[in-house]
Amino acid sequence: MRIALLGGTGDIGEGLALRSTRDTDHEIVVGSRDPEKARDRAAVYEDELAGRGIDAKVNGFANPMAADRADVAVACVPAYHLADTVEAVADSLDDTILVSPAVGMQRDEGGMHYNPPGVGSVTALAADAAPEDVPVVGAFHGLAAGRLADLDSDLGWDVPVVGDDEAAKATVTALVDAIDGLRGLDAGPLAAAPEVESLTPLLINVAANNESLADLGVRFD
Amino acid sequence: MRIALLGGTGDIGEGLALRSTRDTDHEIVVGSRDPEKARDRAAVYEDELAGRGIDAKVNGFANPMAADRADVAVACVPAYHLADTVEAVADSLDDTILVSPAVGMQRDEGGMHYNPPGVGSVTALAADAAPEDVPVVGAFHGLAAGRLADLDSDLGWDVPVVGDDEAAKATVTALVDAIDGLRGLDAGPLAAAPEVESLTPLLINVAANNESLADLGVRFD
Ligand SMILES: C[C@@H](OP(=O)(O)OC[C@@H](O)[C@@H](O)[C@@H](O)Cn1c2nc(=O)[nH]c(=O)c-2cc2ccc(O)cc21)C(=O)N[C@@H](CCC(=O)N[C@@H](CCC(=O)O)C(=O)O)C(=O)O
Ligand SMILES: C[C@@H](OP(=O)(O)OC[C@@H](O)[C@@H](O)[C@@H](O)Cn1c2nc(=O)[nH]c(=O)c-2cc2ccc(O)cc21)C(=O)N[C@@H](CCC(=O)N[C@@H](CCC(=O)O)C(=O)O)C(=O)O
Ligand SMILES: NC(=O)c1ccc[n+]([C@@H]2O[C@H](COP(=O)([O-])OP(=O)(O)OC[C@H]3O[C@@H](n4cnc5c(N)ncnc54)[C@H](OP(=O)(O)O)[C@@H]3O)[C@@H](O)[C@H]2O)c1
Ligand SMILES: NC(=O)c1ccc[n+]([C@@H]2O[C@H](COP(=O)([O-])OP(=O)(O)OC[C@H]3O[C@@H](n4cnc5c(N)ncnc54)[C@H](OP(=O)(O)O)[C@@H]3O)[C@@H](O)[C@H]2O)c1
Repeated sequence: MRIALLGGTGDIGEGLALRSTRDTDHEIVVGSRDPEKARDRAAVYEDELAGRGIDAKVNGFANPMAADRADVAVACVPAYHLADTVEAVADSLDDTILVSPAVGMQRDEGGMHYNPPGVGSVTALAADAAPEDVPVVGAFHGLAAGRLADLDSDLGWDVPVVGDDEAAKATVTALVDAIDGLRGLDAGPLAAAPEVESLTPLLINVAANNESLADLGVRFD
Repeated sequence: MRIALLGGTGDIGEGLALRSTRDTDHEIVVGSRDPEKARDRAAVYEDELAGRGIDAKVNGFANPMAADRADVAVACVPAYHLADTVEAVADSLDDTILVSPAVGMQRDEGGMHYNPPGVGSVTALAADAAPEDVPVVGAFHGLAAGRLADLDSDLGWDVPVVGDDEAAKATVTALVDAIDGLRGLDAGPLAAAPEVESLTPLLINVAANNESLADLGVRFD
């Protein structure tokens, strides 16, 4: 499959690009608002992989070009810029599954809090912004970017996956499972996205309050 | 310590009573609205433990009597009856730490959803209902009652603990850690209770959507 990482120049994009390239046969394309930045970051990812003996091509393009002919496009951008990003690539999303890993949060003196948009979840916001026939799936929310991008780290994390299109959800779950140390789990339809997204501030709060813990993910058992 | 399980006649009360009695030296007291029901259930718990060679006394009383002289009182009642239960024992809560394991939830066709009261969390509701000098701690929300009560099951679960009183939180965390297979983790102040409580519907949704999974808890790593 061809997987586009929109805004894949950032923290979560780096980890997804490195691990998907290392662990799967999928073609990874890094997107950015700025094609030159996309190419630069793609080259950085290639170098990181080459340093580990993995000879792989990672291409970088402007987001719409990255999304073009992609089977899956992961919108690796801040929640508050997700709708813009999806609208900017809307014309390139034929037969593409759109994946949202985004979580809206707000920090106060109590810690990090879930702060969903009015439609109920960020995944629902992505679905509203996408063309009607584009299946939207929520996934990857609970993966700490720092550890994901550290290829020396063994993960052992679960990834709850939500969405209304069962075939799209199965494709994304298989994509998750193909990455070493990740297990995709069905967490229900799009309407169950708030429960999935609100795990992220809990992970951040637990890491912030326990000195021995950082960059947490989660395992269900 | 003396630990009162208010409404400890129910599902989560059973598991907490059995495991605390088996794994710690604490004195467990089962509370109920009905003292006879409390005594009956306490006897059932004693029998279950005796069948495993554990000879321990478990007492049963009306909730206010159970709370009397307790170091910790866990309100093991449905979220929507928590305030009533706390008010009913308020006069007995001198020097007692009140613990809430309660989660307000609503089910619809999308699955289980977090449904907090207007004050923001069920733990905050407990704090509002309790006398002002009673420290309130949220804990035990993510423990599946069925597996907790099955003493043959090894848990390996984490328990996020929230509250504003650091000493009370440390006492409850130590209580959690004393149960085999549980690890207490500081999840922040009372204001971070929504993030802790909303883990429960996610656990229920993941179990409901994955045939191989049931009675889930969680491990942070
Ligand atoms: C804890 C971390 O702080 P930070 O870099 O500001 O990042 C804080 C968070 O943004 C970061 O932990 C995110 O991964 C949090 N986070 C999310 N953050 C988000 O903003 N959005 C998310 O959706 C999100 C999801 C998420 C899921 C799981 C999880 O565990 C964490 C998640 C850190 O290491 N801080 C350092 C400073 C940064 C640092 O170490 N920089 C080094 C370089 C680090 C390196 O070696 O790469 C340096 O300046 O030399 C410190 O406090 O000492
Ligand atoms: C899945 C379970 O259904 P249930 O008994 O209705 O219970 C459903 C849920 O209430 C139960 O899973 C709760 O533990 C869910 N749950 C919470 N439920 C809540 O209502 N509130 C909570 O705060 C809560 C927290 C929680 C945390 C973690 C977690 O994993 C689950 C949590 C089940 O086993 N159902 C059986 C029917 C019940 C059953 O098996 N009965 C047997 C006896 C079972 C036995 O051997 O004890 C029988 O009738 O013969 C089935 O679907 O086949
Ligand atoms: N950090 C984590 O641990 C983590 C974990 C799981 C999920 N997530 C989620 O993943 C998403 C990305 O997080 P991140 O930490 O990777 O973020 P990030 O590094 O801050 O940003 C990612 C990319 O977003 C693009 N971007 C920034 N502002 C934008 C705008 N106004 N419009 C369009 N694109 C913009 C940038 O790409 P260009 O400049 O190249 O366009 C940037 O490189 C967020 O929604 C977050 O909630 C994060
Ligand atoms: N089930 C789980 O897996 C689980 C896991 C973690 C946390 N929790 C939380 O723990 C709490 C108890 O859950 P549970 O499953 O144990 O519930 P439960 O078995 O349905 O009820 C527990 C007890 O609550 C008491 N109760 C019922 N109605 C009441 C009322 N109107 N006023 C006062 N007390 C009443 C009853 O005790 P008496 O009749 O003896 O008074 C009952 O035995 C809930 O808040 C739940 O969210 C549950």
